[in-house]
Amino acid sequence: MAKEKKLVEAITSMNEDFAQWYTDVVRKAELVEYSNIKGCMIIRPNGYAIWENIQKRLDAMFKETGVENVYMPMFIPESLLQKEKDHVEGFAPEVAWVTQGGLEPLEERLCVRPTSETLFCDFYARIIQSHRDLPKLYNQWCSVVRWEKTTRPFLRSAEFLWQEGHTAHATEEEAEERTIQMLNIYADFCEQYLAIPVIKGRKTDKEKFAGANATYTIEALMHDGKALQSGTSHNFGDGFARAFGIQYSDKENQLQYVHQTSWGLSTRIIGAIIMVHGDDSGLVLPPRIAPVQVMVMPIAQHKEGVLDKAYALRDQLIEAGFQVKVDDSDKSPGWKFSEQEIRGIPLRVEIGPKDIEAGHAIIVRRDTREKITVPFGELSAKVGETLETMQNDMLARAKAHLESHIYEAKTYDEFKETIANKPGFVKMMWCGDEACELKIKEDTTATSRCMPFRQETITEICPVCGKPAKTMVYWGKAY
Amino acid sequence: MAKEKKLVEAITSMNEDFAQWYTDVVRKAELVEYSNIKGCMIIRPNGYAIWENIQKRLDAMFKETGVENVYMPMFIPESLLQKEKDHVEGFAPEVAWVTQGGLEPLEERLCVRPTSETLFCDFYARIIQSHRDLPKLYNQWCSVVRWEKTTRPFLRSAEFLWQEGHTAHATEEEAEERTIQMLNIYADFCEQYLAIPVIKGRKTDKEKFAGANATYTIEALMHDGKALQSGTSHNFGDGFARAFGIQYSDKENQLQYVHQTSWGLSTRIIGAIIMVHGDDSGLVLPPRIAPVQVMVMPIAQHKEGVLDKAYALRDQLIEAGFQVKVDDSDKSPGWKFSEQEIRGIPLRVEIGPKDIEAGHAIIVRRDTREKITVPFGELSAKVGETLETMQNDMLARAKAHLESHIYEAKTYDEFKETIANKPGFVKMMWCGDEACELKIKEDTTATSRCMPFRQETITEICPVCGKPAKTMVYWGKAY
Repeated sequence: MAKEKKLVEAITSMNEDFAQWYTDVVRKAELVEYSNIKGCMIIRPNGYAIWENIQKRLDAMFKETGVENVYMPMFIPESLLQKEKDHVEGFAPEVAWVTQGGLEPLEERLCVRPTSETLFCDFYARIIQSHRDLPKLYNQWCSVVRWEKTTRPFLRSAEFLWQEGHTAHATEEEAEERTIQMLNIYADFCEQYLAIPVIKGRKTDKEKFAGANATYTIEALMHDGKALQSGTSHNFGDGFARAFGIQYSDKENQLQYVHQTSWGLSTRIIGAIIMVHGDDSGLVLPPRIAPVQVMVMPIAQHKEGVLDKAYALRDQLIEAGFQVKVDDSDKSPGWKFSEQEIRGIPLRVEIGPKDIEAGHAIIVRRDTREKITVPFGELSAKVGETLETMQNDMLARAKAHLESHIYEAKTYDEFKETIANKPGFVKMMWCGDEACELKIKEDTTATSRCMPFRQETITEICPVCGKPAKTMVYWGKAY
Repeated sequence: MAKEKKLVEAITSMNEDFAQWYTDVVRKAELVEYSNIKGCMIIRPNGYAIWENIQKRLDAMFKETGVENVYMPMFIPESLLQKEKDHVEGFAPEVAWVTQGGLEPLEERLCVRPTSETLFCDFYARIIQSHRDLPKLYNQWCSVVRWEKTTRPFLRSAEFLWQEGHTAHATEEEAEERTIQMLNIYADFCEQYLAIPVIKGRKTDKEKFAGANATYTIEALMHDGKALQSGTSHNFGDGFARAFGIQYSDKENQLQYVHQTSWGLSTRIIGAIIMVHGDDSGLVLPPRIAPVQVMVMPIAQHKEGVLDKAYALRDQLIEAGFQVKVDDSDKSPGWKFSEQEIRGIPLRVEIGPKDIEAGHAIIVRRDTREKITVPFGELSAKVGETLETMQNDMLARAKAHLESHIYEAKTYDEFKETIANKPGFVKMMWCGDEACELKIKEDTTATSRCMPFRQETITEICPVCGKPAKTMVYWGKAY
C-alpha cells in the first residue's frame, strides 16, 4: 500500500498550490515529458490521444463548412515576413532563425513559422485570379515556434501544435461572417465536446493580433479564477492583400483586393481541460473527448473466470461503440484505481468474483465517485447513459463556476478591490482609450480579456478616467 | 472547345518525356504549388486529401499492433545529434541549423529534425527503467527537413511529411520481429490500398540507414521502369541504446540495453501512386485511397430536373458509403470531364435529360473509360462493384507491369546490356563486396535496390568479380 499512496500523494492539492498541482497532474497523468530542448515538450501517448480526438472532431466541424486542408512550408524567408509592417513587428522578436542549410550559410535567413499568414498570402497571390477562385477556405494542422523565455506544458511553449485556418473572400462582409462563424465553431466545440463554457467577444486594439483589423476570442475561466484565451479568429480586411498584392478580377472585370481571415486553436486547450475539470486526484476528462472512456478493472483477477468476464464486458462495451480498455496488469486494484483517476478516465467498471456471482458489475464515475451497480444485461445502456450524464454534469458545473466568478464594478476602487480578492472576471465599462487599459494592467496586473458580444451598461462613464463609456469589457488575470 | 483542349494538351505524353509528364500531372491535378522557399512545396487540397487518407488507413494498421502516437520537438541540439557516430555522419551534411532564437544567438545550435532517432533515444533513456516499461511502440506524424539541392514534388524536397515509428524492446528477437512486422504492414498497405505491388528485401550495407544494423525496404516499380524506395524499416540492435544509455532492469534485476527499431513512410508514396497508375490524361487514383471516388456530372444542367436528379444520386451514393461530389460549376461537360480525369477521380456518373427519361445513369471508369449504363435503382450496388473491380484491375495491371519488367543476368555483359536497354529490375548474384556494388553504379548508374526475401540462385559466382556469390540482388535505376 505504501507505493499506492505515493502515486496519489505526489499530486499537490490544488488549493494549496494551483501551479504545482497543474505540473503534477501533467506529469503524473503522463501527458507530457520534458525534453532537453529549452521550452519544447514531448507530448506522450496519453496527451497526444486527447489532441487526436480534438483534431478529429474539430476537423469534421471545419469540413462541414467547406474548409479544405493543405500543408505549407515550415520556413518563412525574412523578406516575406517583412511584407506586412504590423505583422513583422509583432512576431520578429520571438522567432527562431535558420541561418545555415547543410554545410553552407544561407543567402537569406529563414524563420521557423510562428504563424503562416505571410505564406498563405504568397500562395493566394499565386493562385487567385478571378472571382471564380473565391472563396478559398484553407486550414492546416501543424506545429509553430515562438521563442518563449518562460514556458509551461501546453500553456506556453517554444513549439506547440495547432490548426491555423486562412481564408480569402471577395467581400468585407463575407470575411467578417467567416471570422464570426469560426469563432462560433470554437465556442460550440468547447461547450459540446470539452464541457467548457466560454465568453465570446472582441479583443481591444491593444490585445489584437499583429496585422488584424479585428480579433475575436473565446475566453474560458480556469478553476483558480484565471482566464485562458482558448481560440482566436481574426479579420484582416484587405491589409494583407494590399501588402502582398492579392487581387481578383470581379464580374465586371475590375481588379479588387481580397478580404482575409485567420483563426487558430492550439494544444493550449488541453491546459484548459486540465484546469477546468481536474481535481486533487488528477485529470477528469469529458467523456466526449476521452481517448479511453471506460477502464474495466478485474478484482482478484487471479481467480478463475474474472479476467475472462472482464474481457467479455470490454468486448460488449466496444461493440456498443465505447472506447474501452481492461487493466489486466499485475498491479493491485488500489494502484490501478489511482492510475485511472490520475489519467481522468471517465468511468471504471469493477468486476470481481462476487460481482460475477451476483450477475452485476459496478460502474464508478470519475467526477463524483458515484457507484452504480448494474446487471450485466444492462451494462452497455447504463454506461452510455452515465457517460452522457457525466458530460452534462461537467458542463453544468463549469458553467456554475464561471457564472459565480463574474463580478461587476461601478467604480475603479471597487474594481481594484474585486480583482485583488476575488478570482474571476470583472465586468467594467471602458472609454476605449489604451491609457486606461494600461493603467489597469499596471495597477492590478489584470488585462482586458474581451469586449463581449453580450453588452450591458453598468455605468455611463469609464470608472478609470471619468470620460463617457463606450463599451463593457471583461477584465481578468490570465494565463 | 479551345479552352478545353488546352487543359488536356497541357499534359506532356508520358512516352515523350516522363519527367515532364510527372510535373504536368502534379501541377494540373493541383496536388502541389511551388513556394518561394527553395525546395519546399505547398501541398494543395487535392494532394493533402490523399495524404489524409493514407494517414487514416496506415495509422489504423499501426494501432492494431499496439502502436501509440506521440509528438517530439522539431529541434535537435547539436550535441544530441552527435551522440551516435554513424548517424551524425549520415545526416549532418543535409540539415538546416537554427542559430538564433528571438533577438539573441543560441548558445548551442539546433538542427531541424531530419529524422528523430536521437530525440526518441533521449526520451527513452528518461522513461524506461524496468522490463515492465517495455516494449515502447511509439510513432509520430510530422514534417522533417533534409537540405536537398535538387528537388521534385513528393519525390525529393527539402521538407516533407512522414510518419516515423520508433520502438524499444527487451530482446534482439523482438526488435527484429517488429522490424519485419512493420515492413509487412507497409507492403500490405501499398498492395491493398494503393494497388502498388512491391519487392520486399534487405538493403546492402552501403544503402542502409545511418546507424542501423539492418535496413529493410519495399521497392516499387514506376511506369518508366525506374524503382522507388517506398518505405523502410530499420533494426538498430543495441547501438543507439549504448550511445544514449537506454537500459532496463530485467526480471533478475540485471541492467540490460534495449533493442530498437524505426520505420518510416513519407509523402513520397504519393509520387509512387502518380507514377504507377497515371496515364496521359492525368492521375488515376485507386478507389480505396481516392478522396473523391465518384463525381456526378449533370449534362445540360440548365434543363429542369437535371441538377435535382444529380444531387439525389449524390445523396443516394453518399448514403451507401461512397465519397461523392457533384460538379455543378458552370463549365461545359467536356471541360468537367477533363478536370475529373486529370484529378484521377475513379468514376464519373453522367446524368442528363435523356438519361432521366430512360431511368438510368452512365458510369464511366477512369482507368479503362468503360461506360456502363445502370438503372437508377441499381446505381449504388453497381458503383460499389465497379470501384472494387477497378481497384483489383489496377493492382493486376501494376503486378503485370512489375513482373514483365524483372530480368535476370547471368553475366556482367548481359547485365549491362539489360540495364541500358530494358527499364526495370535486373536480378543478378552478388559476392557481398561493396567494390562490385560501386563498380556497377559507376558503369551503369544502377544501384542495389534490395536483397529480396525470396532468394533464387541464378549463378554460383558474382558475375562482376567471379568470386563465389552470396546472395541475389535486385538492381535498378531509382528515383
